[in-house]
Amino acid sequence: MTISASSIPRRHDLVRAEMRRLGIDALLVTHPSNIRYLTGFIGTAGALVITERTCQLLVDFRYVTAAGDIAAGLPRGVVTVHAVDRSYDDAIIARLRESNAQRIGIEAAWLSVKRFNALSAGLASGAPLPLDRNVPCPVLVPTERIVERLRMIKDAVEVETLREAGRRLSTIARDVADLVRDGRTELEIAADLEAAIRGAGFSKPAFETIVASGPNSALPHARPGPRVLSAGDPVVLDFGGVYDGYCVDLTRTVQLGVPSPALERLYDAVDAAHRAAIKTVRPGVRPSAIDAAARGVLAARGLADAFGHGTGHGLGLEVHEEPRISRETPGVPDDPIEPGMVFTIEPGAYVPGVGGVRIEDDVLVVAGGCERLTEAPSLMRAAGAGARGSEY
Amino acid sequence: MTISASSIPRRHDLVRAEMRRLGIDALLVTHPSNIRYLTGFIGTAGALVITERTCQLLVDFRYVTAAGDIAAGLPRGVVTVHAVDRSYDDAIIARLRESNAQRIGIEAAWLSVKRFNALSAGLASGAPLPLDRNVPCPVLVPTERIVERLRMIKDAVEVETLREAGRRLSTIARDVADLVRDGRTELEIAADLEAAIRGAGFSKPAFETIVASGPNSALPHARPGPRVLSAGDPVVLDFGGVYDGYCVDLTRTVQLGVPSPALERLYDAVDAAHRAAIKTVRPGVRPSAIDAAARGVLAARGLADAFGHGTGHGLGLEVHEEPRISRETPGVPDDPIEPGMVFTIEPGAYVPGVGGVRIEDDVLVVAGGCERLTEAPSLMRAAGAGARGSEY
Repeated sequence: MTISASSIPRRHDLVRAEMRRLGIDALLVTHPSNIRYLTGFIGTAGALVITERTCQLLVDFRYVTAAGDIAAGLPRGVVTVHAVDRSYDDAIIARLRESNAQRIGIEAAWLSVKRFNALSAGLASGAPLPLDRNVPCPVLVPTERIVERLRMIKDAVEVETLREAGRRLSTIARDVADLVRDGRTELEIAADLEAAIRGAGFSKPAFETIVASGPNSALPHARPGPRVLSAGDPVVLDFGGVYDGYCVDLTRTVQLGVPSPALERLYDAVDAAHRAAIKTVRPGVRPSAIDAAARGVLAARGLADAFGHGTGHGLGLEVHEEPRISRETPGVPDDPIEPGMVFTIEPGAYVPGVGGVRIEDDVLVVAGGCERLTEAPSLMRAAGAGARGSEY
Repeated sequence: MTISASSIPRRHDLVRAEMRRLGIDALLVTHPSNIRYLTGFIGTAGALVITERTCQLLVDFRYVTAAGDIAAGLPRGVVTVHAVDRSYDDAIIARLRESNAQRIGIEAAWLSVKRFNALSAGLASGAPLPLDRNVPCPVLVPTERIVERLRMIKDAVEVETLREAGRRLSTIARDVADLVRDGRTELEIAADLEAAIRGAGFSKPAFETIVASGPNSALPHARPGPRVLSAGDPVVLDFGGVYDGYCVDLTRTVQLGVPSPALERLYDAVDAAHRAAIKTVRPGVRPSAIDAAARGVLAARGLADAFGHGTGHGLGLEVHEEPRISRETPGVPDDPIEPGMVFTIEPGAYVPGVGGVRIEDDVLVVAGGCERLTEAPSLMRAAGAGARGSEY
């Protein structure tokens, strides 16, 4: 992953400022994307213990060499690596004890009840004998969104990576109608799309590619299956890629042959909702207002019930991250958006018996508005019998 | 997913027997693979509330149609589907209240501290006014491995699926030396392997394919990169596929050109460890004894420190599930293995400066021993300059 030399220490400074505000003297980070953001380390396991002066990366045998290389590439002492022998929890407890931390933040959204209980019991029970009654027992303090909030605002290097990723995904999107032909199956088209994603320089698809044709298009998260495409089908193609660690995500609905009048109305409505939402994006606007812009257009056309998901989601090290662009919902943050945020705009309308349409692009919030990271014709039509696709 | 008609009600009976044993009157299942095992439903979200008489599947808008189809395919009343409007937690609380359950099991390994706290607070605070002091407040009870233990023992349909998956993966493995050639990159070979996995009828790779060549082979979980293969390299190829929902997983280390004497000793040692471990597998043996068989062979050759991971892991709806075939470790189950279990045997040895070798196959435990689900030559050599590979 490309990281500017100064970004990791700066991220640590911001985490430590938040730790002081919360009155915690250590933070245990266990969510892999958050560990990656704070160290550059990529692995399916690992834990990070951050204190005012130290940032200790705990990894098992499989990752010791890779983690050591990463630490060596950072300014000295920014991250130190510790090998875990048998149990992550034992290693975490040992590091926390050594730090003498008394209020230890944990990531409540990512730590399981099982591990919370095991860590609590370990911290409470393992004090050296004879017990010193003057030493209070450390406590685990649930915290939320310490790292996730930082991750929302992309720095210059992250923005450049996402721009390049968006350009590459757009190239695939512009040719996507060529894949949609009579007689092909959803699975064949999905395989072609994933090959195109790798061919465009992505390290992998960002999620399982969706190709949903005909009646399946009315299922917002259908998986590609053996269904054979035929004339009249709408075909929802939702695909994304991971480029240098960062995810982009795009959807087009390609019409194969002539759409029914009811389907034509869906295309028009979703296209208008997509444009209305993008027009709304600028610093200071709440996510719920962007969502309302898309939802209002659909509701005005009698499609309020046909749009059951949110309008968008943040993009970055994860393909679904903050901010969520959705209706105001208790417990879901709705803070005004800020420059440097990157998210999708993806209204859809799904009507059983008619079909489904979704159009999705990625935007970067900039002063006064947004920059589109993906660009391709919103509506595309594929000819019924093998001819090249054209703009709709 | 192919499920025999009677398997889902039978699984529910077993879960309910365990609930009675634990004295819980409802179980909240949130782990997607466990939901899938108990209903057939496949989704990235969803929750299951099981009581003595009901099994309620809660899904959001995206999945209502798919979940309804699944419930309709089961005997009437086995699973009922409820649409979640805005918040899963609110919907779960409503269903739990309605059930009057007082001791509610949760899956401690999978529920986050955040959700546990939100559900607890919701159950405690939402009682209708005026409060009736005679009605006790329901409590959430952490449980572990209720569904995971059932999933370890595969039924006849699951075994047939895994056998077919193993046959298909073996076909790819037998030709894998042909992919390994001078001048190719790890990434190119990984892409070819993933294409072969799809071509063999798998719905997707079971995990990110590993191709680790030369010095990278000494990193047990290296990711494929731009490194160009050259003569003398060991090349670890670790790949798997998902077939009808079930995962299989296989590793071969292909030698490109002539190995160094030190590397040759690694191949011999790992091959011997692999054979010794498979020979040990039979009902009644503890996982730690299987692990010890592999570890003992390597230790006898001075390679004790070169084998830092476990000998194997269960396979099924997940590519890493129970049982774990590893050293005896506090907190990790080491119950005797039983017929119907399916797991990998994958010893390895990794020596910086020399290279790494891993050999992995999948086995099914049967009366008196095990059946190999994957079959391919253990050691394979690729010629240095584009000639076809041969058995080593």
